[in-house]
Amino acid sequence: MESKKFILQEKDIPTAWYNVMAGMPVKPRPMLDPVTKKPLTAEDLFPLFSEEAARQELNVTDEWIEIPDEVREMYRIWRPTPLVRAAGLEKALGTKAHIYFKNESVSPVGSHKLNSAIAQAYYCKKQGVTNITTETGAGQWGAALSMAAKHFGLELAVYMVKVSYHQKPYRRSIMQTYGAEVIASPSMSTKAGRKIITENPNYQGSLGTAISEAVELAMSTPNCKYVLGSVLNHVALHQTVIGLEAEKQMQMAGEYPDVVIGCFGGGSNFSGICFPFMRHNFAGDTDTRFIAAEPASCPKLTRGVFEYDFGDEAGYTPMIPMYTLGHNFAPANTHAGGLRYHGAGSVVSQLREEGRIDAVDIPQVETFQAATLFARAEGIIPAPESSHAIAAAIREAKKANEQGTAPVILFNLSGHGLIDMAAYDSYFAGDMQNYDVPQPEIDKNTDQLENIIR
Amino acid sequence: MESKKFILQEKDIPTAWYNVMAGMPVKPRPMLDPVTKKPLTAEDLFPLFSEEAARQELNVTDEWIEIPDEVREMYRIWRPTPLVRAAGLEKALGTKAHIYFKNESVSPVGSHKLNSAIAQAYYCKKQGVTNITTETGAGQWGAALSMAAKHFGLELAVYMVKVSYHQKPYRRSIMQTYGAEVIASPSMSTKAGRKIITENPNYQGSLGTAISEAVELAMSTPNCKYVLGSVLNHVALHQTVIGLEAEKQMQMAGEYPDVVIGCFGGGSNFSGICFPFMRHNFAGDTDTRFIAAEPASCPKLTRGVFEYDFGDEAGYTPMIPMYTLGHNFAPANTHAGGLRYHGAGSVVSQLREEGRIDAVDIPQVETFQAATLFARAEGIIPAPESSHAIAAAIREAKKANEQGTAPVILFNLSGHGLIDMAAYDSYFAGDMQNYDVPQPEIDKNTDQLENIIR
Repeated sequence: MESKKFILQEKDIPTAWYNVMAGMPVKPRPMLDPVTKKPLTAEDLFPLFSEEAARQELNVTDEWIEIPDEVREMYRIWRPTPLVRAAGLEKALGTKAHIYFKNESVSPVGSHKLNSAIAQAYYCKKQGVTNITTETGAGQWGAALSMAAKHFGLELAVYMVKVSYHQKPYRRSIMQTYGAEVIASPSMSTKAGRKIITENPNYQGSLGTAISEAVELAMSTPNCKYVLGSVLNHVALHQTVIGLEAEKQMQMAGEYPDVVIGCFGGGSNFSGICFPFMRHNFAGDTDTRFIAAEPASCPKLTRGVFEYDFGDEAGYTPMIPMYTLGHNFAPANTHAGGLRYHGAGSVVSQLREEGRIDAVDIPQVETFQAATLFARAEGIIPAPESSHAIAAAIREAKKANEQGTAPVILFNLSGHGLIDMAAYDSYFAGDMQNYDVPQPEIDKNTDQLENIIR
Repeated sequence: MESKKFILQEKDIPTAWYNVMAGMPVKPRPMLDPVTKKPLTAEDLFPLFSEEAARQELNVTDEWIEIPDEVREMYRIWRPTPLVRAAGLEKALGTKAHIYFKNESVSPVGSHKLNSAIAQAYYCKKQGVTNITTETGAGQWGAALSMAAKHFGLELAVYMVKVSYHQKPYRRSIMQTYGAEVIASPSMSTKAGRKIITENPNYQGSLGTAISEAVELAMSTPNCKYVLGSVLNHVALHQTVIGLEAEKQMQMAGEYPDVVIGCFGGGSNFSGICFPFMRHNFAGDTDTRFIAAEPASCPKLTRGVFEYDFGDEAGYTPMIPMYTLGHNFAPANTHAGGLRYHGAGSVVSQLREEGRIDAVDIPQVETFQAATLFARAEGIIPAPESSHAIAAAIREAKKANEQGTAPVILFNLSGHGLIDMAAYDSYFAGDMQNYDVPQPEIDKNTDQLENIIR
């Protein structure tokens, strides 16, 4: 295999995260208290999140935020991750484009999610928290946080979206092996869960619902904090180690990306690979394109609206300025469980509004075609989520072939799919569906949902 | 996590494999033709194996055998692999022992098996072979060979032991995703399979039976070779990259192992980690102990006899001088599918007879206790096979605690267990069994089985 790997040393693990908010020409709109409609302060978030996460969430001034030694120590278990020139894929596509991918699948839990799980668990531990809760879709985030929680001696309860709980039993088992409690969501263990089960007994869950349950449990449990795996600014912040490493590795390769691509659920891996490169666009030094690859079944950036919405189904969270399909949007039961979320984080939404980010929506079957091509060309079986980024990269390469150009394309391989093989089985059996989303009906009926942007 | 990682550069990937046979003071007894009882030549093996593999199999003179560039290129996808000082595990055990593990789980298919799969597929391709066959237990070997076969453009048929085919459906799917055909063994597709199904319709298969089927298909298909994932000398040879890298990494750590441990099925990962260190024992420079950790349910090294036996159930293979439970031995349906093999390779058997190798047999439940402790301490969920090595390392550390010593212990983490989570579920559910092997009844009734050693 001619594919070339670019390897950094442990000393090259970044010592600080890049805080994109400090560099943004227009800052993201603030999160609002749903009752008072006033911008939230860090202190307002302390009951829900660790204090350090809350401060990072609202920090729009410090461009670099130091990574604690304890976090870097744990990063060393698998970081730095490889950057790979995907020569096998290029050959299979017959393209002159140079395709690179950052391989975040090499973490012990198989995805990039550990980058933030470790940081958030550490901050909770540091302030004396004993219990944490979270949601998970496909289980990549839940697995990562389970490992981090065990390391720092925290008790963890994970609400796992019901469809994924049944589709991906191995990830549930992984969380349990690390010592976490896993509950299928919606569940009868919370008011939010009971309400939705009563209204729709067959509801297979969504990330929005699972977040409601995790938040409710955290708020009603002593010395317990809620930890989120995507969407929020501090999560994106922690993920910038991906792009910071990739930037050094592209230098080793003697190239700079024309296009950077990440799959898009709430934004964590997309932000992680893109934001460090985006700072050079802010400075006017580069004109890199950033492409968010989202599922056609959950297309908030391509077909949603930009307005204030809740981060969860029940409406427990602050109101977030986001591209959204509505917090009650029930995504189809696709295999990319990590992308089944109704909204985009406030930073990505702001950048999208300014035209600094492109987005494409990709049908499920196309993502598995791309995944299979990639697996056979590069030897790595990608996660269904990551396959959206691969599919978008392939589209770019094919476009380049038509146009006779040779762009440098970089995408993030956010995780491997070794625990998603039932999805591949469905694809090979020919019974995989595409899901068409009708023009989304955004819920504007609750008086808490105020469209103050448009 | 205080666990420290020792990282090599790509230039440190070995350029030659270590051929232990050249260094052995007493050479292994030869493989015999079952009919003539004469030692086999490389040419005798050409119909079955690639010519280069056949030559390597019988090469007792060249201490170093060059790794072809095409093979090293593919090794670069994931090699060199990390060596880790398992400080988390040491702490959990309260031991003064220094415990290291070589992390072979970072390969894209999750195990060390790729080291030989790539080499063998390359040699087949080089001589113009178009089709290959193999057997697989838990699917680690089958997954590795599927990836290698796809890369070199070979068609592959894999006979997967039936119990694992059902226990580990994801590994079957992985092989299919790489483009291989997977058949549950015993099957009706071969004479050997039909015979055993007829005699025992509920037989759940063994590696010995799957080998018979794969050999039969290879011998009856034009331009087709058989490729084996363990037992044979050339497979062990290819796996020595593990120990050669580990040797350099132990130097980086400023230590040398007192004990080296590998789990033991047919011997591939055990040989890979041990043989390079063993050459210093041969030279009289060191007195390292080597421990093969085998399942109590399949204990050929601890409870078998040393005699000529077949490598497969049906008796198609040459006769191999091996510690064996008898080629008709039907191992219990444990979760460590890769260790369910009746015999040990000729080199390991010879070294065992000379007392150069120790062996321990470990009950299944103890291996999962060790696996769970390791997962929570080091963050990596180990394969059920590898958990035997972990359990043996833990026994050594506990013994050291009792004796007040502080040995340096090195074990091979041959693979991760992310695709074996059903096994963990069984363990946590409390319904996992230990299997007691009665004193094995070695089959001495066939006239082909000649005990010429004892």
